[in-house]
Amino acid sequence: MQSISESLALHEKWKGKIEVISRVKLDNSEIMSKAYTPGVAEPCIAISEDNNLSYKYTRKHNLVAVITDGTAVLGLGDIGPLASMPVMEGKCALFKEFADIDAFPICIDTKDPDEIIFTIKNISKSFGAINLEDISSPRCFYIEQELRKQCDIPVFHDDQHGTAVVLLAGLMNALRLKKMDISEAKIVINGAGAAGTAICDLLIKAGAEDLLVCDIEGILDEEMENLSEHKRRLSLLTNRKHLKGLLKDAVIKRDVFIGVSKPNLLTMDDVANMNKNPVIFAMANPVPEINPTDAKKAGAFIVGTGRSDFDNQINNVMAFPGIFKGLLSIRAKEISDEMLISAAKAISALVTDEQLNKNYILPKAFDKRLVEAVANAVIIQASSKQ
Amino acid sequence: MQSISESLALHEKWKGKIEVISRVKLDNSEIMSKAYTPGVAEPCIAISEDNNLSYKYTRKHNLVAVITDGTAVLGLGDIGPLASMPVMEGKCALFKEFADIDAFPICIDTKDPDEIIFTIKNISKSFGAINLEDISSPRCFYIEQELRKQCDIPVFHDDQHGTAVVLLAGLMNALRLKKMDISEAKIVINGAGAAGTAICDLLIKAGAEDLLVCDIEGILDEEMENLSEHKRRLSLLTNRKHLKGLLKDAVIKRDVFIGVSKPNLLTMDDVANMNKNPVIFAMANPVPEINPTDAKKAGAFIVGTGRSDFDNQINNVMAFPGIFKGLLSIRAKEISDEMLISAAKAISALVTDEQLNKNYILPKAFDKRLVEAVANAVIIQASSKQ
Repeated sequence: MQSISESLALHEKWKGKIEVISRVKLDNSEIMSKAYTPGVAEPCIAISEDNNLSYKYTRKHNLVAVITDGTAVLGLGDIGPLASMPVMEGKCALFKEFADIDAFPICIDTKDPDEIIFTIKNISKSFGAINLEDISSPRCFYIEQELRKQCDIPVFHDDQHGTAVVLLAGLMNALRLKKMDISEAKIVINGAGAAGTAICDLLIKAGAEDLLVCDIEGILDEEMENLSEHKRRLSLLTNRKHLKGLLKDAVIKRDVFIGVSKPNLLTMDDVANMNKNPVIFAMANPVPEINPTDAKKAGAFIVGTGRSDFDNQINNVMAFPGIFKGLLSIRAKEISDEMLISAAKAISALVTDEQLNKNYILPKAFDKRLVEAVANAVIIQASSKQ
Repeated sequence: MQSISESLALHEKWKGKIEVISRVKLDNSEIMSKAYTPGVAEPCIAISEDNNLSYKYTRKHNLVAVITDGTAVLGLGDIGPLASMPVMEGKCALFKEFADIDAFPICIDTKDPDEIIFTIKNISKSFGAINLEDISSPRCFYIEQELRKQCDIPVFHDDQHGTAVVLLAGLMNALRLKKMDISEAKIVINGAGAAGTAICDLLIKAGAEDLLVCDIEGILDEEMENLSEHKRRLSLLTNRKHLKGLLKDAVIKRDVFIGVSKPNLLTMDDVANMNKNPVIFAMANPVPEINPTDAKKAGAFIVGTGRSDFDNQINNVMAFPGIFKGLLSIRAKEISDEMLISAAKAISALVTDEQLNKNYILPKAFDKRLVEAVANAVIIQASSKQ
């Protein structure tokens, strides 16, 4: 708690974590006449004749909108647009620190998905890409899907795809150590929200064939009553044997547990009931689904969490700066699952065979090589499709 | 044209005229845990309990949205959101240069006034104030009026009120030289768009009693056919004697001409037909309603234009930085005409009686005293109302 009240004092001192500056020193009328009227008419005319020139003459080429509706902020839930601003400013500061990207926070004051889509679409033109943040599930799926259809720039919900990319990178290296192919791995995902859904989708794209997804009601199965549309979709993608039961049943004889749910939902008995040398990714924040020490005592081979104070941190900051850097540098109109898988491979490849061990399956969040490696992976993947 | 093609090259070099930076150096996990998760939860919780704390813990206290729909950009007209971005970036750069305000450009991709209002209202919460820019008339009146009702931060259309404030400052000093009270001055305004309308309204608030407004059809009069709603309103505020005729008729025996219209609409004969020693503000850009040299030859006592290469430049940059600085510093919820009149008085007061002459009725645009003088005027006016 010490560091938390310190955080409040620091926020008061910082007076905001972002700032907008001018790249041009406007201190005389000569330069004013070029940066502003009358000279500014020239780039305006050029862009009106060819919209692509906006990447050349404005900041669009490096500008990301970080947008929330404030409905799923940290573990705090629906705290609204104003209260979510400190998180959005923090995210923008991370964009600058890690990738030298200009990111600007936009907090939307409506919870209606169609109104959110309409608002974002209307302001999207002058940005190079959109990062959606902390929008509650399942609304986030529809909002992202529609925006991807309606906008001509990439739209990326980091709580979904950022988490999925880093998790996949960690899983790839965990399986490298276990000498197991992803297609053989028996995986259980606990949590069917934004992150769990995106992880499930990306693992399947990456070759996973045996997945179960659990939520609070237990293993998702199409025969369940009152299954929401997006959970029905997940059940059809995964549980082909119509297994029924709770998480404790789902983990039996599984190789990999992926938790994107709530603290302390996984017991030591659950870990003991998994296949030998299981991999545990317990990513609930700030308290994981199982304490790493307990998980290891119960037989876990590799444990990863969202925390920086344990080994094997799964941190979105390994992925989103490089992904956006890559997207912006090629002026991408959209983002593909293949780009995300390439990004995950690039992250995992930063750990060499010599370095790889059960306590070091991922680079550190501050590894300077990450942004370029991930950006290049996105760029190469994009060019290989053309 | 030399400087104009140079402007295009400079825009390519600048790669955008604004940039978003981080105010916090996020280079280790200790500071990350305070600026981002988990520490950032504290300011979020504080703001969710008291929305006013957003001024303390986020950048809202210094953040202005510069918003356009791209329908009336410079003299170029309706060039759309992307092509208007160079102007909006330039405006944001001016905010930073002149008032150290963080201004961010938002270009709206719809021309429907209600959709524009809806979009702006939805993103307004995290800003401290809104500067509307280059929105075509008469749509701009309804858009601003509705936003002022719906938003809890000040909304200011600079093309209207910024121009009106600086014009009023210039007029005050011109009348000081003429030793004429504003209530006695016979004034004609040519142009009934955004600027002309706001000037008319502000001059009346400031005490003007004898005004005519002309547009392309001639002197606005309520008996005219097909008068739009906003021109009818202007006609009712001004032409009580139901004068009819064109601009050349309107100028006869007038003391002050205010042009916010098109190049070369005012002739030397028109100036000669005005009262003795008339004041001419010919603000059409970049070519004024009459060349200052011609105006003086025809008998003009004082001539002001929008240009920096003539004496007596009427430039919005004298007003908006200080006005927003003042509004932000008191966390104003709205802006009043009284604040605008106080701002105009503050600008005019920067020219002392000793300095005041027909070629120096306004401070220079780069006068460092302007921003503080105008901000203080707004602050004092606001506190006098409480």
